[in-house]
Amino acid sequence: MWRELLPVGRHPGTGGYRRYAWTPADAECRAWFREQARARGLTYETDRNGNQWAWAGDPAAGDAVVTGSHLDSVPDGGAFDGPLGVVSAFAALDELRARGARLTRPLGIVNFGDEEGARFGLACVGSRLTAGRLTREQAHRLTDGDGITLPKAMEAAGHDPDAIGPDPERLARIGAFVELHVEQGRALDLTGDPVGVAGAIWPHGRWRFDFRGEANHAGTTRLQDRRDPMLPYAETVLAARREARLAGAVATFGKIAVEPNGVNAIPALVRGWLDSRAPEQGSLDTVIEGIEAAAREHAAAHGVGLDVTRESFTPVVEFDHALRDELARILGTNRELKVPVLGTGAGHDAGILADAVPTAMLFVRNPTGVSHSPAERAEEDDCVAGVLALADVLEGLACR
Amino acid sequence: MWRELLPVGRHPGTGGYRRYAWTPADAECRAWFREQARARGLTYETDRNGNQWAWAGDPAAGDAVVTGSHLDSVPDGGAFDGPLGVVSAFAALDELRARGARLTRPLGIVNFGDEEGARFGLACVGSRLTAGRLTREQAHRLTDGDGITLPKAMEAAGHDPDAIGPDPERLARIGAFVELHVEQGRALDLTGDPVGVAGAIWPHGRWRFDFRGEANHAGTTRLQDRRDPMLPYAETVLAARREARLAGAVATFGKIAVEPNGVNAIPALVRGWLDSRAPEQGSLDTVIEGIEAAAREHAAAHGVGLDVTRESFTPVVEFDHALRDELARILGTNRELKVPVLGTGAGHDAGILADAVPTAMLFVRNPTGVSHSPAERAEEDDCVAGVLALADVLEGLACR
Repeated sequence: MWRELLPVGRHPGTGGYRRYAWTPADAECRAWFREQARARGLTYETDRNGNQWAWAGDPAAGDAVVTGSHLDSVPDGGAFDGPLGVVSAFAALDELRARGARLTRPLGIVNFGDEEGARFGLACVGSRLTAGRLTREQAHRLTDGDGITLPKAMEAAGHDPDAIGPDPERLARIGAFVELHVEQGRALDLTGDPVGVAGAIWPHGRWRFDFRGEANHAGTTRLQDRRDPMLPYAETVLAARREARLAGAVATFGKIAVEPNGVNAIPALVRGWLDSRAPEQGSLDTVIEGIEAAAREHAAAHGVGLDVTRESFTPVVEFDHALRDELARILGTNRELKVPVLGTGAGHDAGILADAVPTAMLFVRNPTGVSHSPAERAEEDDCVAGVLALADVLEGLACR
Repeated sequence: MWRELLPVGRHPGTGGYRRYAWTPADAECRAWFREQARARGLTYETDRNGNQWAWAGDPAAGDAVVTGSHLDSVPDGGAFDGPLGVVSAFAALDELRARGARLTRPLGIVNFGDEEGARFGLACVGSRLTAGRLTREQAHRLTDGDGITLPKAMEAAGHDPDAIGPDPERLARIGAFVELHVEQGRALDLTGDPVGVAGAIWPHGRWRFDFRGEANHAGTTRLQDRRDPMLPYAETVLAARREARLAGAVATFGKIAVEPNGVNAIPALVRGWLDSRAPEQGSLDTVIEGIEAAAREHAAAHGVGLDVTRESFTPVVEFDHALRDELARILGTNRELKVPVLGTGAGHDAGILADAVPTAMLFVRNPTGVSHSPAERAEEDDCVAGVLALADVLEGLACR
């Protein structure tokens, strides 16, 4: 099953995956999902927002247990982020059947569309639409780097863009959602555990810093006559690291745009994007205030203008405590696993659904902590432990 | 004359000029040059390398006095850098004729092709080819941002790319070359003089710094697990400013490329280009050594790899002392001007020719020092002073 999916959308040069929403690589992943559902005799459906579902039992009965994740990827992503949760879902169902377990609740497997937002710039589009956290009008305005709008891309892939929108009936049928995901960090590696459960998703946001100076000749303009925006940008990059370290948070300048971006030109504009996340809102506020203060001070010292724009923000997401404790109990009883409760800085479809549905996450150990990279890894033994843990959880929840 | 040239290649949005070699805007500038030559009854020719010449008298007679500059521009350049030298050349000839001066040597006006290198990345292509400082084979490998090679671009503009190459016979006919140029700095503004002469062009070079770290998730990777190349890059930007200040030099990071350049991704690669220039070779060496040492130290501290590549280098160019002193004498005698001798960090066609031909430069005051920008300025009075000074110089040299 895993082997058939591995080559899809893999770039031969980088070894990374380029599975972007509504592209041919995405369509291949979707065909693979549908085939997995068919081969197991599951009821298959694509919902109005392009998310794929495979059902054992009647979803209309309500109080369903749902598991799954996503199959799309970031640019040159790894093999596990997303697909591990979907592959493990099918494998856990196979395990349940091998055990002869009888379902007392409907069991659903889901592939949420466009989780990474690699193409249209917004993450979790499939789950956001379903949960009413993104309107059809907003979604219709999303555009990719080639100027193709989301509705055009959907249409080209055979999906009706006018049908998209909130789907409260579908959510109302779900009694519990459990997403399994490779860990994006080294917490389990450090504690020595193969599997953990999610506590909360850290609050996080993205800020754009526009430093505006004066374009000039790099060879002839005296240092004292310059208004070079690269200098306060550099100071701000260093301030971000310093503030994050003091607060136990993370802060990253990973994207930059420079104008005119010429070797012999002092820039007119340096635009840097800051991504920052922290365990609590208070620490995140402290970090951002510290970075912005440093940026303003250094911009002023260099005669450079500064605009700071918050481009996006997601408050802390606490997963359902009862469901989390139930997972820990099941895994502790069946496998004598101690299952650490991990906070995480990454967003997930589970975080989007957590407002509407009791939601939990299982993490599988990542030996290097690397993710969103071709070097992302998970050991086979840990993947198996993840499948067995997920099977135990599904059995405990849906076969009582 | 100036008015006809002003709108050519001007971008309506920025107000800056986009006159790149072998484009339609370049062709319009060339047509303007040819028309100026025709209107004055001058002998017009385009040489094998696409440089344009207009002659009063017989160039084959030898020992010619030549003046001129270039008409192409950097991206969103100003109106004066280049064109002021060509327009002033024609205006100075008009002034000589109005004075009834009789030429005793041939007088040439030149428009060197592709001085700024905005399209193909190498400056002074026309004069380099002519002086044998660039081979035909090297020139044929130059490619623009759209993948169009220099020979293809020449062909499309109606110039034979196979004809290009060194032109020693043409250079041998020139007894003196004087290029008038708007100052790219504020030295004349500070001394209060409308016109100056060039002493030397500072040694200068371009270095590429490749910081290689590890791409990872910006939300989930602990600070201590990161190998983030943006941090040593930022330290290096600040070190460049510090080292340049200490040495009385200039050093600029104006161009950057980041991979993958995603808001939520720690970069795998930050590539920064350093442009540095200093009054003497020794200071330039000190600056570069200091910057590279800081870059290596900070890269190592962050577990980041570093490669430093010198992409280009031009040693100091001393202009002909006898010719420079002759210019100062003429201007001092005729106009009682004190003409400051200025070093400059900018490259010029005059710098390329200085090895082969006695060469001098006249600078016209720039009240703000801004150049390579739509905000570049020169006062009308100073432009007139420049034309009269050039006319005096040409009369002194070619009408003795």
